[in-house]
Amino acid sequence: VPPVADVGAKTPFAQAEYERRLDGVRSSMERRGIDVMVCTEPANLAYLTGYDAWSWYTPQAVVVMRDGGEPVWIGREQDAACARWCTNLSEDSIVGYPDECITDPERHGMDAIAQLIVARGHARSTIGTEDDGICLTPRGLRHLRDGLPDARLIDADRLVNWVRIVKSEAELEVMRQAGQIAMAGMRTAVDSIAPGVRECDAAAEIYRTLIAGTPEYGGEAPWRPTMPSGPRTTTPHLSWTDSPYEPGTPVNLELGGCRHQYHVGLSRTLHLGPPPDALRTLAEATLQSFGELLARIGPGLRCEEVHQIFRESVQGHGFDKASRCGYSIGIGFPTGVWIERTASLMIGDSTVLERNMTFHVVLGMWAREQGFMFSETVAITDRGNEPLAPFDRELLVVG
Amino acid sequence: VPPVADVGAKTPFAQAEYERRLDGVRSSMERRGIDVMVCTEPANLAYLTGYDAWSWYTPQAVVVMRDGGEPVWIGREQDAACARWCTNLSEDSIVGYPDECITDPERHGMDAIAQLIVARGHARSTIGTEDDGICLTPRGLRHLRDGLPDARLIDADRLVNWVRIVKSEAELEVMRQAGQIAMAGMRTAVDSIAPGVRECDAAAEIYRTLIAGTPEYGGEAPWRPTMPSGPRTTTPHLSWTDSPYEPGTPVNLELGGCRHQYHVGLSRTLHLGPPPDALRTLAEATLQSFGELLARIGPGLRCEEVHQIFRESVQGHGFDKASRCGYSIGIGFPTGVWIERTASLMIGDSTVLERNMTFHVVLGMWAREQGFMFSETVAITDRGNEPLAPFDRELLVVG
Repeated sequence: VPPVADVGAKTPFAQAEYERRLDGVRSSMERRGIDVMVCTEPANLAYLTGYDAWSWYTPQAVVVMRDGGEPVWIGREQDAACARWCTNLSEDSIVGYPDECITDPERHGMDAIAQLIVARGHARSTIGTEDDGICLTPRGLRHLRDGLPDARLIDADRLVNWVRIVKSEAELEVMRQAGQIAMAGMRTAVDSIAPGVRECDAAAEIYRTLIAGTPEYGGEAPWRPTMPSGPRTTTPHLSWTDSPYEPGTPVNLELGGCRHQYHVGLSRTLHLGPPPDALRTLAEATLQSFGELLARIGPGLRCEEVHQIFRESVQGHGFDKASRCGYSIGIGFPTGVWIERTASLMIGDSTVLERNMTFHVVLGMWAREQGFMFSETVAITDRGNEPLAPFDRELLVVG
Repeated sequence: VPPVADVGAKTPFAQAEYERRLDGVRSSMERRGIDVMVCTEPANLAYLTGYDAWSWYTPQAVVVMRDGGEPVWIGREQDAACARWCTNLSEDSIVGYPDECITDPERHGMDAIAQLIVARGHARSTIGTEDDGICLTPRGLRHLRDGLPDARLIDADRLVNWVRIVKSEAELEVMRQAGQIAMAGMRTAVDSIAPGVRECDAAAEIYRTLIAGTPEYGGEAPWRPTMPSGPRTTTPHLSWTDSPYEPGTPVNLELGGCRHQYHVGLSRTLHLGPPPDALRTLAEATLQSFGELLARIGPGLRCEEVHQIFRESVQGHGFDKASRCGYSIGIGFPTGVWIERTASLMIGDSTVLERNMTFHVVLGMWAREQGFMFSETVAITDRGNEPLAPFDRELLVVG
């Protein structure tokens, strides 16, 4: 039975699930000789405690001591109230610092985090920090170091991320729900995008679906769907405009369904009216090669082999794909999309696929004037894989 | 005539507006003795060039040279395509680095940024960085420093932010549009929130409105509305659940209308059914004191005086407000809400209010078991102020 939380619980997962995660992090800390891990990446805070408030714009951390005990959430005093609502931490393990740490230019929230580490008896320990996660700033790290003159600070970026890469059954169940929401969002896109409709109005309908979710479970605020149309389809990270869709143009839509901050990514190219032959050909090649990838992706394969399978297949159709064709996916916040920053499906990445890893397979294909976008999220199973959002696998003709 | 961009332009503002902004930044660089400013905060990239792609999770910067010339956008190669679409920069001033800077653990996007600065002849200069903006990481700064061994790097965090504090007429026009969108979102909340409705379904309707915007102009993906209900109203940064609203409970809704990334914040407390007397009393006191603040907030006043006006007034009603009651607002991205990180309406901040500054006046009031949330965004005018989203000023009773 997966350790899902009871109805009315503060966290989406049962306490046993968080303890399993902490054990994994403590094992990694042990191997690296780290006594105290200062986690600042929002996805890592959520992973270890359930904390999911949008408060990362002021300094905050979850501090994990290797020698046991609860992790400690520390952040701005007003956000301690959030931690009380969305984590199971005891009052001793929720620490708020005063607003002066934000407003006084001489002070910093990281001063309070250093003081906490000293107060808990770790002034002389080895402390891991997330030096390339987007929420630890250089000034923040300086304040942490100045407050811990007898400690040894080391860059342990992605330590927690590598623990996140293998999901539990409970996490997979949440991701299946996110997959259902993603498919509902894509269905809404197909139903909403048409010549003459303003792009922002189609985006509004897609958001509405992604947030309403299904009758059984609601959605959450997802990473912004990327949905350029026409000539803007050459760009990867722009979104809608308030112009109406033009007939005879493509839309490359990449969206994520979001449930308990877990995202399932899903992309399709939609075409307003009959697509040109060159796009049909590119789409057909991509879809056939995706079929080959899907038939073979499973445990024991190395990430680079997945890329190679797809690449050789599309080369057989006269196309190529030199860049990575996916990455490990899971918890996402707007600071860092839904990318886990661990394994990539690309040449040179020898990570071996294991059961319960989840990958967003992203096939952005470009050939002369045509671009075709296709992505799906799969979980690795005992013998193969489980697609989490198996939406219609075709070039979608709309309008 | 405000320098708005022509229809079909790549940027929301005309080129003259961006040049004015750059002049302001160069003056500040001159005063601080900075030759090259490396801007990494997403709002600053947008402010200086129009760049608004959601790509901040990989290293990127806008580099401003004090000695003139266009600023340079530099980031991941695939995002250079975004910069071509949403900025007016020439091809020489858009620089992409290869994906190996992301995937190779020995390399970093900041290596490429250091190389660019060397290539443009600034290897021995004084370089300003944004050391407390959320997108520059400690590892990124180390790579930048290692690539510029003969340069002097100094922390110039918020240099651009302080230029942003006074808006142009064109920016105010965009913020008026954002204000209209914020009010439409609040109206939808009043119409959607009712006993038995799932919180996620109300959130879905609010998002739909915020993104569809008005018939004249669309909205954009805003910072996530904060909308806790019932006992969760003690928290500032949590959002909806998928439970239905209960009759007889409050909802504290803080939302932002978003147009060209400019946000206008707006908050109200809604109550499902008749509110308790204690909440009515608190609301009445807050609204009267807000009226006094609004009657007096204008040019020449210091930020701390605004706080004092409100504080003395609510103290006259038997309540208190010791924490800040607002801050400068403008461009917002999900990395840092819509807070400019400059002036705060609070005791100790002696910034003098000037025409065309914009403030989000935030009055979160807590008394015993009751909480009342009220906020509005105002522009400072020649003689007073202009409320940008003057929604019904009352405790909103719904359902």
